[in-house]
Amino acid sequence: MERDTIAAISTPIGEGAISIVRLSGPKAIAITNELFSKKDLEQVESHTIHYGKIIDPETGDIAEEVMVSVMRAPKTFTREDVVEINCHGGMVSVNRVLEIILSKNARLAEPGEFTKRAFLNGRIDLSQAEAVMDLIRAKTDKAMSVALKQMDGRLSGLIKRLRQELLETVAHVEVNIDYPEYDDVEEMSHQMMREKTQKVHDEIERLLQVAKQGKILREGLATAIIGRPNVGKSSLMNALVQENKAIVTEVAGTTRDIIEEYVNVRGVPLKLVDTAGIRETEDIVEKIGVERSRKVLKESDLILLVLNYNEELMEEDKKLFEAIQGLEYIVIVNKTDLPQKLDMDEVNHLAAGSPVITAALIKEAGIDELEAAIAQTFFAGEIDTGDVTYVSNVRHIQLLKQAKQALEDAMQGLEIAMPLDIVQIDVTRTWELLGEIIGDTASDSLIDQLFSQFCLGK
Amino acid sequence: MERDTIAAISTPIGEGAISIVRLSGPKAIAITNELFSKKDLEQVESHTIHYGKIIDPETGDIAEEVMVSVMRAPKTFTREDVVEINCHGGMVSVNRVLEIILSKNARLAEPGEFTKRAFLNGRIDLSQAEAVMDLIRAKTDKAMSVALKQMDGRLSGLIKRLRQELLETVAHVEVNIDYPEYDDVEEMSHQMMREKTQKVHDEIERLLQVAKQGKILREGLATAIIGRPNVGKSSLMNALVQENKAIVTEVAGTTRDIIEEYVNVRGVPLKLVDTAGIRETEDIVEKIGVERSRKVLKESDLILLVLNYNEELMEEDKKLFEAIQGLEYIVIVNKTDLPQKLDMDEVNHLAAGSPVITAALIKEAGIDELEAAIAQTFFAGEIDTGDVTYVSNVRHIQLLKQAKQALEDAMQGLEIAMPLDIVQIDVTRTWELLGEIIGDTASDSLIDQLFSQFCLGK
Repeated sequence: MERDTIAAISTPIGEGAISIVRLSGPKAIAITNELFSKKDLEQVESHTIHYGKIIDPETGDIAEEVMVSVMRAPKTFTREDVVEINCHGGMVSVNRVLEIILSKNARLAEPGEFTKRAFLNGRIDLSQAEAVMDLIRAKTDKAMSVALKQMDGRLSGLIKRLRQELLETVAHVEVNIDYPEYDDVEEMSHQMMREKTQKVHDEIERLLQVAKQGKILREGLATAIIGRPNVGKSSLMNALVQENKAIVTEVAGTTRDIIEEYVNVRGVPLKLVDTAGIRETEDIVEKIGVERSRKVLKESDLILLVLNYNEELMEEDKKLFEAIQGLEYIVIVNKTDLPQKLDMDEVNHLAAGSPVITAALIKEAGIDELEAAIAQTFFAGEIDTGDVTYVSNVRHIQLLKQAKQALEDAMQGLEIAMPLDIVQIDVTRTWELLGEIIGDTASDSLIDQLFSQFCLGK
Repeated sequence: MERDTIAAISTPIGEGAISIVRLSGPKAIAITNELFSKKDLEQVESHTIHYGKIIDPETGDIAEEVMVSVMRAPKTFTREDVVEINCHGGMVSVNRVLEIILSKNARLAEPGEFTKRAFLNGRIDLSQAEAVMDLIRAKTDKAMSVALKQMDGRLSGLIKRLRQELLETVAHVEVNIDYPEYDDVEEMSHQMMREKTQKVHDEIERLLQVAKQGKILREGLATAIIGRPNVGKSSLMNALVQENKAIVTEVAGTTRDIIEEYVNVRGVPLKLVDTAGIRETEDIVEKIGVERSRKVLKESDLILLVLNYNEELMEEDKKLFEAIQGLEYIVIVNKTDLPQKLDMDEVNHLAAGSPVITAALIKEAGIDELEAAIAQTFFAGEIDTGDVTYVSNVRHIQLLKQAKQALEDAMQGLEIAMPLDIVQIDVTRTWELLGEIIGDTASDSLIDQLFSQFCLGK
């Protein structure tokens, strides 16, 4: 299918040394060539770089001094002709070059449209395309590593293998039924079906077992710090931010006021919930009221409850313990540099098995232990991104859960000796659900929606 | 001189489709090659692009999927070997690639160090290097156009020509004196000196005449909006921001709270002073106290005084008129959609020749007239960036002023028939001062200081 030519600024917005306008499509080279001084880009070899100037065709003025990279299909990001125009950075200059390009036969790319073309042109599948975005948004090395492996096709490979097994089983059984060599073909086919569905089911279960961790690596651990005033919540926040460089992200599509702050704790991105609130008011629970605070707590993946070693346990502390029952939390007993007044037995009793860390945050003691406890709680200590295939994307997790359910339906049917052609409906459904992960059986609207979450220029 | 190899992230920080790590220096290609899978980059031709992966040498893991551009000296930005590694965007991935590069034989580049090398290696002169930064920071098309022409060497060419004329004159006069062909050689030499110094003096004066405009295009016009409460200051601000896309810039090297907001008014960047203050308190003068408000006003290049057509002139209005006497201001009489109560004769009298614009900001009437008045006040209506060589940089302006003064000293010496070898001291001094603009006679510490203001990766 002949597509039109798209263009967008592909570098982050801001002052920098280099900004890039990227074009993709059949006219990418011709359009650039029309505006380029010095050289005939239509004649140059693929994957070569050319110095020159972009001339504003209306005024004849130099619009920018540029380096142009010419890459011809099919060995490109989109599998179409791609041109990258490296400008001198600066918003005005790169915007002007884009404007001039768009005044020619190119159209502004939609968010994610370059990657979408890579998908539509068959260079990558859907889970790989999603990994491209995960890579950009990755908050830690570990998260990046998960995304890179997914981009490299590790998850796709696994999913394809599982689908292949299901397909072969279905085909095999059909052949057996249509051309029975033996009398016990029905029994044999049932047996084979049972084995195969069980095997695929187990593999999906294994994927789902680490999916929670994959999701945490990808999205971060929403973390709330709670405690009475003056127990050291700000100290804890500062200690976490100082030891682990904070990553501040502006939330796309919103005003510049909404930002998210992440700290990287041994590869786990902690997203500090309502950071500003805690910093300013010293007491999140007091500030937002009991009902709303309970909601914030429920939405947190991890709660850090701070107590004061130098004071007796108060009614308020006990209420906080009550509020977080059933949630994932770690208790930090702060100010161990001061004389003990807190009954640690009581604390341990209330914690009911959740980790209790002692700390003197003002002396930076206890942070290591806290980080170890976080890693232990969510990753059983070691965060291994080496051999594990992490499913990290909610969409993938949902599809895997549905696929697992469909397989269980099939297995149950086999159990009660349902006819194989009925059982096969569930197996085929599993095959389709897995196909949605890699985009083989995904609908157009799903694809549109997925790519629209990408950033512009990707 | 053999230099070391430097590396830095050359794209703005943030989420984007592409981020670039740039290397420059004798080992740029070798270092990248060590970490690059798939191909031997040492063998590839210059100015070619190669797909591959950066491998973390410690773990053997893939660190990033990249496109590597190899450009060999001398046809590069720095005139050294340059490698650009295009990563998938995202802060973590590009930081990791940079870290791996720095673990090899490369060092993190200082701000501006790539451009500094371009200067030290003789590819560009100092005023061109400064234009590179101006281009990045340009707030409007016009400002960019000024920077582009300076980068293209227009100012350098002019300065070089003036220096050449001075040098030839000095040489000529010396030859004449040493080998006199005629008896009236002293008189002739004086005459020649007078003509040449006058000519160069006039050209410098012409440059300085438009320098104020150049500086405004480069740095923007610090603009304060003042007026009593409820006269429509916020409406004015909003109208300016809405009609002309606001450019918000974080000030480099400060916390993220200090931002500058620019609006592009017919190519003139207006820097709205204390925007936040005005927006929130509705009255800058009241908020910051009379003394401090006077200081803000004094530091503004332009003051927009808003009055209410629907009210009589009040004591407070008159006080504001007093406060801005001697400053550059425009009066906006707002709310002309309501019945007149303001005595316009009195306003015109108080304005004493400064422009008075009538407006109904709530109906978006009057903004065009205001913009025309701003253009008129600072650029006599037409902002011409075509043929004018704008000096826009304070450093250049200072040097030109000093050069002009030195020439005037020379001319005065000639007037009172001082000996030529005394006059020549001033002429030589002029030659040196002009040389500082293009970096011919600039000191190392000046050069260090200039480049340190650049952004990282440039």
